[in-house]
Amino acid sequence: MRLVSYRIGDRESYGAVTGDLVIDLRTRMPEACRTLRDVLSLDALGDVRRAAEGQTGDHAVADISFLPVIPNPDKILAVALNYDDHIAETGRDKTANPAWFVRVAASQVGHQQPVIMPKVSDNLDFECELAAIIGKGGHAIPAATALQHVAGYSCYLDGSVRDWQRHTRQITAGKNFNATGGFGPWMVTSDEIPNPQVLDISTRLNGNVMQHGNTRDMVFSVAELIEYCSTWTTLEPGDVIVTGTPGGVGFKRTPPVFMKVGDVVEIAIDKVGTLVHRVEQEL
Amino acid sequence: MRLVSYRIGDRESYGAVTGDLVIDLRTRMPEACRTLRDVLSLDALGDVRRAAEGQTGDHAVADISFLPVIPNPDKILAVALNYDDHIAETGRDKTANPAWFVRVAASQVGHQQPVIMPKVSDNLDFECELAAIIGKGGHAIPAATALQHVAGYSCYLDGSVRDWQRHTRQITAGKNFNATGGFGPWMVTSDEIPNPQVLDISTRLNGNVMQHGNTRDMVFSVAELIEYCSTWTTLEPGDVIVTGTPGGVGFKRTPPVFMKVGDVVEIAIDKVGTLVHRVEQEL
Repeated sequence: MRLVSYRIGDRESYGAVTGDLVIDLRTRMPEACRTLRDVLSLDALGDVRRAAEGQTGDHAVADISFLPVIPNPDKILAVALNYDDHIAETGRDKTANPAWFVRVAASQVGHQQPVIMPKVSDNLDFECELAAIIGKGGHAIPAATALQHVAGYSCYLDGSVRDWQRHTRQITAGKNFNATGGFGPWMVTSDEIPNPQVLDISTRLNGNVMQHGNTRDMVFSVAELIEYCSTWTTLEPGDVIVTGTPGGVGFKRTPPVFMKVGDVVEIAIDKVGTLVHRVEQEL
Repeated sequence: MRLVSYRIGDRESYGAVTGDLVIDLRTRMPEACRTLRDVLSLDALGDVRRAAEGQTGDHAVADISFLPVIPNPDKILAVALNYDDHIAETGRDKTANPAWFVRVAASQVGHQQPVIMPKVSDNLDFECELAAIIGKGGHAIPAATALQHVAGYSCYLDGSVRDWQRHTRQITAGKNFNATGGFGPWMVTSDEIPNPQVLDISTRLNGNVMQHGNTRDMVFSVAELIEYCSTWTTLEPGDVIVTGTPGGVGFKRTPPVFMKVGDVVEIAIDKVGTLVHRVEQEL
């Protein structure tokens, strides 16, 4: 099942995508399920599935404005260096544990919405990543059972403002510019992706392949990442784990390649879909 | 005005502290103001002040359970190295820009609630910090007018699990263990602290002074921190800016001093108050 968060007119909703149509699920679910995060918090994915069954669709996909899959997560935990070829191109040492940063919700942007080039930089770079969305929360989750806590997967564009990322050793600033974190188009529920470690993942910039990897090459698997971060924090339904990028990022190329206003960037992941953004200038 | 978030029985509320009493403000404010964050979002601090006027108090302070001043902020942005003596003791280079990390809400804990020693480490260290709470949100806020965006100030214990903080260059993990970030006891509204850069700040551990500094020695002032972080993110009412710690932290002492189960840690800041926690073992 492909679940989207979206706006139509001035109403926010969520639904299931089937072909070119969206089944509005908010109107078919209890009032307490106002958002996809509520659905996960109330353990209501089964109800959502039943509500969508036999429905043909309420809107054309072309008529909705996509929101980030989870517009309002409690937390977005992202990993900096999680593929060998990317570690190599950055010149960093491989570490025995994953390197985490946090994204704030305002840095996210839905499918087909503009990614924003900030006024203060022209160093906006792409990173294609697999996002895992937590369904069942927990603390100290063992890797062996961690995938049972994943509600589904999505594409993530971990848009990175490289000069601000390198102002200090902590990369938070460059990873948190408003509307640089593409998240979508939808969440594919995890029943359709029993193994998240066999997925081709790539970035195309204006049609040219810039990154191409496979999630089998993650240093820390999705399950291991969940085990590690749930040691220090309690994962909540709707939390987003962003799992790192393979090699080929723009700022380590010779010469460096940064995104420019008007560029179209696409993140494609097997079995998940393709996330598309155009770059626009901050006004 | 001293504003607290608290629980009494099974009800969560917020109020004003006057002497040994708390005036329950939630019961005196419109339904939309369910939390102190709502009050800030709805620009209702003036209404709160009027609601408290002439009231004598509904509960004894001794009868409430303190919550983190803002239990559910949209974001908690914290600075790693912001006093010269602390930069010196860590051996890091001074940077031209502040180094940021993000705390998640689950890492926070209210005044007098236990700070939790995690099972996986005995490296729990103290850091005393001034927290600024955003009243009026904004993007690209100039330093010159930044303090107008601050609703008030509080004490923050930036409890840090040093071994996990040093797993990689990114300190997120060690800064985000559940219930390690003390935040309270209350917010003193900014009309009482027109200049946040003249405040003595200290940590006492079991009565012994471990850190003692003054906010005049911040490398980046509260106003400059707001200017920098609002360049990349849009600040929202209730956001928390945690402004760094002076020298004297435990892990840079010879021999290192870490907090132990049963220890009492106190963060005292001029004109703000004293935040107190006892350390308990994670079960």
